[in-house]
Amino acid sequence: MALPHGVVETPVFMPVGTQATVKTVAQDVLERLGANSAGAQIILANTYHLYLRPGHELIRRLGGVHRFMSWERPLLTDSGGFQVFSLSKLRKISDEGVEFRSHLDGSKHFFSPEHSMKVQIALGADVAMVFDECVEHPATYERTRASMGLTHAWAARSKDYFEAHKHEVPWFGDPSSFDEAERDGTPVAAGQTQKLFGIVQGGMYADLRRESAERLVAMDLPGYAIGGLAVGEPREVTREMIARTLEWLPQDKPRYVMGVGYPDEIEEYARMGVDMMDCVLPTRAGRHGLVFARVEGLVTRLNIKKLEFAEDQGPIDAGCGCMVCRRYTRAYLRHLFAASEPLAGMLLSVHNLSFYLDTMARVRRELSADSDAGDKSPASP
Amino acid sequence: MALPHGVVETPVFMPVGTQATVKTVAQDVLERLGANSAGAQIILANTYHLYLRPGHELIRRLGGVHRFMSWERPLLTDSGGFQVFSLSKLRKISDEGVEFRSHLDGSKHFFSPEHSMKVQIALGADVAMVFDECVEHPATYERTRASMGLTHAWAARSKDYFEAHKHEVPWFGDPSSFDEAERDGTPVAAGQTQKLFGIVQGGMYADLRRESAERLVAMDLPGYAIGGLAVGEPREVTREMIARTLEWLPQDKPRYVMGVGYPDEIEEYARMGVDMMDCVLPTRAGRHGLVFARVEGLVTRLNIKKLEFAEDQGPIDAGCGCMVCRRYTRAYLRHLFAASEPLAGMLLSVHNLSFYLDTMARVRRELSADSDAGDKSPASP
Repeated sequence: MALPHGVVETPVFMPVGTQATVKTVAQDVLERLGANSAGAQIILANTYHLYLRPGHELIRRLGGVHRFMSWERPLLTDSGGFQVFSLSKLRKISDEGVEFRSHLDGSKHFFSPEHSMKVQIALGADVAMVFDECVEHPATYERTRASMGLTHAWAARSKDYFEAHKHEVPWFGDPSSFDEAERDGTPVAAGQTQKLFGIVQGGMYADLRRESAERLVAMDLPGYAIGGLAVGEPREVTREMIARTLEWLPQDKPRYVMGVGYPDEIEEYARMGVDMMDCVLPTRAGRHGLVFARVEGLVTRLNIKKLEFAEDQGPIDAGCGCMVCRRYTRAYLRHLFAASEPLAGMLLSVHNLSFYLDTMARVRRELSADSDAGDKSPASP
Repeated sequence: MALPHGVVETPVFMPVGTQATVKTVAQDVLERLGANSAGAQIILANTYHLYLRPGHELIRRLGGVHRFMSWERPLLTDSGGFQVFSLSKLRKISDEGVEFRSHLDGSKHFFSPEHSMKVQIALGADVAMVFDECVEHPATYERTRASMGLTHAWAARSKDYFEAHKHEVPWFGDPSSFDEAERDGTPVAAGQTQKLFGIVQGGMYADLRRESAERLVAMDLPGYAIGGLAVGEPREVTREMIARTLEWLPQDKPRYVMGVGYPDEIEEYARMGVDMMDCVLPTRAGRHGLVFARVEGLVTRLNIKKLEFAEDQGPIDAGCGCMVCRRYTRAYLRHLFAASEPLAGMLLSVHNLSFYLDTMARVRRELSADSDAGDKSPASP
C-alpha cells in the first residue's frame, strides 16, 4: 500500500495514537518495535481528540500531525464519528451532522461530513476516513438501515468536500516535508495528497452490509473500512460480518477492519483477507498489567501482577525478541507494576505492541510463502 | 572513581532510581542520556523502598539490584536513614536503631546500622552508605551534637558489620555477573566488593561539621558524603557548610553531597571540589512540566504548560543536543502535558536528566582543561 509518507506492507496492525502519541511509547521506540526492530509501519490518530485539543488549525499551522508529533511514517486519522458517538455528551443528530458537547469541558461543537474532512485535511494524515454514523448495538433492522442511509449520504458529502479541498493538506507540494539529512525519513513526493477511505456500515445484518459495500464501492474510493463491529456482539458474528462484507469489497484495494481485536482475532481476520486493523488493546492492556505471550503454542493473556511472577527470571514471552523481552524479567516488570512505577505501563505496552506487529509480520511471511508456492505449483488453480 | 561495575568520571551527577527505576525512564534511555548519548554513569537506588518492596532477600535471590533491574553500570544505595526519618511514621529512635512503620501499609520495621548493611549487601550496589541519623532542621546545637554522636557510633557499627559480611554481596566472586556477549557490559572482576562511604553530619554548625569529618576520616573509609543539607536552610548556608566540610575531607577520595540541587548549584559545588551529587529534581520537575534550559546564557526553569509555548516550534533548549531536543518541539511537549499524556513526563525527565549530565560533562572538561593548563604553565603554583 503506497502512501504519501511511505509504503506499508499488508496485512498491517496500526498502533493507536489517540492524542498524537501512542500512550507511554516514545516515537523512537515505535520505530523499533518488534523482534526485528522494524517498528510500526503506520499509526492512527484520533480526529475528535486532536480537534478538541490542541485544535486542528494549530496542527495545520505547525505543518500537520506528522511534523507536530515528529513521526515521518504513514499515519491514519479516523473521522471522529465513533468518538462523537461514544465519548461526547448531549448529541443531536440531523441530516446535516452531529451537535455534541466536548467530554473535556462540555463546550458545544458541530461535526458535519464537511467539517470532519476539513479537520482531517488540516491534520494531514496519509489516510483520512469519511464521516459516518455509528449505530448503537443492538439495533433493529430498520434503525440500522436508516443509519446506513445517513452514512452513505455523508460518505458522498465527505468525498465531495475532500476532492475540492485535498490540495490544502499542509504538506501538499512540499517535496521535503522533513529534513532528510537529519532524520533519514522519506519525504513526501510533490503533488501527493491524502487518501480517503469509505466505511461500510450495516450493523449485524449481512444484506445491509452488502448494500453498504456496494454503495461505497460505486464511489470508487482508494480503500474501504468495515466499521461498526466489535461493539459488543459475539465474536462469531464479528467474523461472519467481516467474511460477508469482504466478498463485496475489491481485493485490489486496502480493506480495513476498525477497532479489533485480540492477537488471535487479528491473525484470523488477516488470513481472511483484511489488510489493516487497529486497536487500543495492546496499550490499554499493558497499562493494566496484562501482557500477551505464547504459552505452549497458545496465545495467552498473563496478569503480570500475579505472585507467581515475583521471582520469575524469564522474559514475558520466551519466544519474543522485542526490546523488553530481551532485557527485563517478569520479576522486575511485576515489581514495577506493584510499585505503581510509570515505566511498567511503558514496557508492557512496548511488549504488547511488538507482539501484535510480530503476529502480523508472521502472517505476511506465511501468506507470501503460500502465494509463492501457489505461483510455482502447476497444480494450483 | 573505580567501582566494581565500572569506572566513573567525576564530578558526576547520579539520577535517582528510588524503586530500582529512574521514574518514567527506561534503562536503555538512561544509557543514552545527554548530548553525546553517553548516558548516566551511575544511578542511585533507595534502600528503604527496596527493603519494603520487593524486599532485599528477593533481590538477593535474583542476583542483586543490577541484575534485577538490568543495569550493568555502577549503582549506589543510600542507607535508608533519610527515608526512615522523612517518609515513615511513628519512629522510635534508640541507640540500637530506629523502629518505624512502613509508609505503604503501616507494618512495623526496625533498622539498625547492622540491618541497613545487611539490606545494602543483599542489594549489592557498588557503593553502600553507613546508616546515619538525620537531624531535623532547624535543630539546636546540643540536639545536633547529640545526633552527630549517634551517627558516628552507627558509622562504626556499619563498618564493622560491613567488613564482616561484605563477601556476601550477590555478585562476589562472580567474574561474569553479566553475560558479556549479549550485553556488552563490564563484568565484575572476581573478588571485588562494595565500597562503604561515611556520612558527615553536624547540621548547620561548622565546628560540628569539622568534628564529624575528622571522626569519619579517622575510620579510613573509601569515600565520604556530606549529609543533612538542602533540608530547608538558605542556599548560602548550604554552600558554606559544603565549603567548610570539604576542607576536612581528603581530596584523593570521592566526596559526595547528598540530595542537591538545581543545575547552577551542582555546577557550583562541582567546581568547589564535590565529586558526586544526586537529586530527584530533574525527574520530579519533569513530571510536573518544568524543564531546565539555558536562555540567554542563564539557566532557567520553564513551565512547558504555558500558553506561550503552544505554537513554539523550537526545542526545549536550542543549545541542548539530547534526544528530546533533537526530535520534539515545545509545542508538542506542551500538548502532551496539557493532554495528561504519560509520554510528557518521560520526555521532560529525559531532557532534564540530560541537562544535568551535560552540565557535569562540561564542568569535567573545564576542570580537566584548567588542570592541563596548570600542568603546562611553569608560572602556576
